[in-house]
Formats: sequence, structure tokens, C-alpha cells
Amino acid sequence: MADVHLALVHYPVYNKKGEEVVSSITTLDVHDISRICRTYNVSNFFVVTPLKSQQELVDRMIQHWQTGYGSEYNPTRKQALLKTVVKRSLEDVIDDLEEKTGEKPKTVATGAKQSSQSVSFEILSKEVADPGNILLIFGTGWGLTKELSEKVDCILEPIKGKGEYNHLPVRAAIAIILDRLLSEK
Amino acid sequence: MADVHLALVHYPVYNKKGEEVVSSITTLDVHDISRICRTYNVSNFFVVTPLKSQQELVDRMIQHWQTGYGSEYNPTRKQALLKTVVKRSLEDVIDDLEEKTGEKPKTVATGAKQSSQSVSFEILSKEVADPGNILLIFGTGWGLTKELSEKVDCILEPIKGKGEYNHLPVRAAIAIILDRLLSEK
Repeated sequence: MADVHLALVHYPVYNKKGEEVVSSITTLDVHDISRICRTYNVSNFFVVTPLKSQQELVDRMIQHWQTGYGSEYNPTRKQALLKTVVKRSLEDVIDDLEEKTGEKPKTVATGAKQSSQSVSFEILSKEVADPGNILLIFGTGWGLTKELSEKVDCILEPIKGKGEYNHLPVRAAIAIILDRLLSEK
Repeated sequence: MADVHLALVHYPVYNKKGEEVVSSITTLDVHDISRICRTYNVSNFFVVTPLKSQQELVDRMIQHWQTGYGSEYNPTRKQALLKTVVKRSLEDVIDDLEEKTGEKPKTVATGAKQSSQSVSFEILSKEVADPGNILLIFGTGWGLTKELSEKVDCILEPIKGKGEYNHLPVRAAIAIILDRLLSEK
């Protein structure tokens, strides 16, 4: 069984107009995704932003629920946030994992668009069943930039629901993808 | 294939102390769940609250994205909210569906606890494949009350991730359950 890690990327991503931007941290995303990661036993959840003030915001939030008033008020949040850390870039995430595990993780980009290089859930599930380190990468805003998606080891096929509508919140996409890859069937 | 409907219940639910309360509407829940329902082609998404001011809040929100400034600013939200309606009680939801479809829907409660009457995802998936009307019921706050769960036709088994932690946000639970029951495999 591989160790699965997750990165929520706030740069480089697209905005509504297709411009490359830094998106803002949504603290609710950090809470929700931490709880989802904890449920599926994800090894590390990296919140990626190059902005120092936003890094500090996430750090303060984690600290509040880890050691502050929040840790007594809601212990399940404390537990959820144990594996949540902030990094300033995806390169830093990969370096950190290489340092901890002795190998570069396999990088897997996600997104709403089908690509000619897309791998299926079935294939990725098989890789997850083998030992190794897999980093699932999710974009905020209007998704990961093309340039970033071209640098990863593979791209996971998009979630198909029923019909044409494909505008899932990133929180929901993460829940569905982790469930498909990691739940005990 | 059954028509699947979804109710997000704000009363009767438990609070943190296990008391029966009316929980507050979270507008982000309404947005997220509307988008998730639209992705999986859910027929109706009912937001259930007995509080008039909260009903009005949801109605105003829907109107903003349907016909107000929001409908131009973000058409995908407009689409997502097309099937979202407010009801004051679960009884009203069931009456409404009976009136529209000519039959009472099969009511299915969800929750984080295993029950002796729990039905599996496998069994419910088979029922979803047959014609009919199925109403999936989700509680906000600390979950649906025992009394409500005893009145429904069946209770869906809880989502098991990996390990003991089972505190998924309701938004995430809905995404996972709809994907398990309705995605094209």
C-alpha cells in the first residue's frame, strides 16, 4: 500500500478569465480537506501558497485548533489537522517528501478536463495498492495551470457524474477521489 | 433508474451536546451541495428548515444566482441551483414528492453510526438501478435525531474510510455517497 499525500495548490492556478494567479486561502477548505484526508488516512496534507501572509493565516489556524482554545472546544478538528502543513511551492512539497521518504513521490495532477495522457481511476488504484509515495495535486480557483500539469508524472482522469455538468467544488472532488482510490471495498 | 432526491435537514438534528436543535443554514453548504447534486443529476435538492427567516435567506440566495447579478457573473451557479428548493419540514418534502410523482418516495437516512438496520451501498445501488423515487436524507449539525431515523424506510451504512476517524463534513459525505450510488462505472 502506497503512502498517499495531497497538495492543495493556490499558485499557479487560473482565475475565471484564464489568467495565471495566486488564489486566496479558504480556511473552510483547509478544515474540510483536513477532515477528509484524516478519514482516508492520507499521510500529509500540504497547503501550497507563495504568499507569506496567507501562510501565516493557515499556521495560526492550525495552531488555534492544535494547542489553543479550539483543541478543547473541538478535539476532532485537532485530530484532523495533525497532518496539515503549509508549503510555499509544489517544489518544496516534493523536496520535503523526498527528504522524509528517500524518494521523489509520483506526482498526479487532477482536474475537470480529459487529457490524452489521463490515467484511469482503475490504473491509479492499482498503483496505490503497491508500496511507494504518491502525491495527489489539486488546484483551487479555476484549476491547475497547463504548465504545471505538463510537469507531473501523470494526470488523473476527471470525475464523471451523470451528464455534462462538471463544476464540482475542489472539496467535493477531493472527497470523491480519495474514496475511489482508498476506501476499503 | 430511480429518480434520486436529496434533503438537507436542519431540524430535528443534534447539537454538540446531543440536544435536539434547529441548526443554522450554511449558504456554502447550499452552493456546494447544489453543485454536487447537479453533477450527479439529482432530481430535487430540498433544504429543510422550519425557521422562516432562514427559509427567506435561502430563497434570496437562490434568486440572486437565478435572476440577479449572480446569474450573469457565474452561470454555472445558476445551473447548479435550478433544482434547489426550501421546505419547512421533511413531511412537506415527502408530500411534495408524492404530489409530483404519485407515490411516496422511499426514505433513506444517512449518518456516521452503524445501525442494526443499516443497508449496504451495494443493496441501495441495486434499488437505485430500478425505477422509483428515492429520498436521501442528510442531517446537519451532529446528525439526524434518533426519532427521525426510526421513521424512515431504511438507514444507509456509514462511509468507512481507513481507520477510526469518522467526522466527514456533510458536504463531503454527500459527494461520496452520490458518487458511490450514481456515478457511471
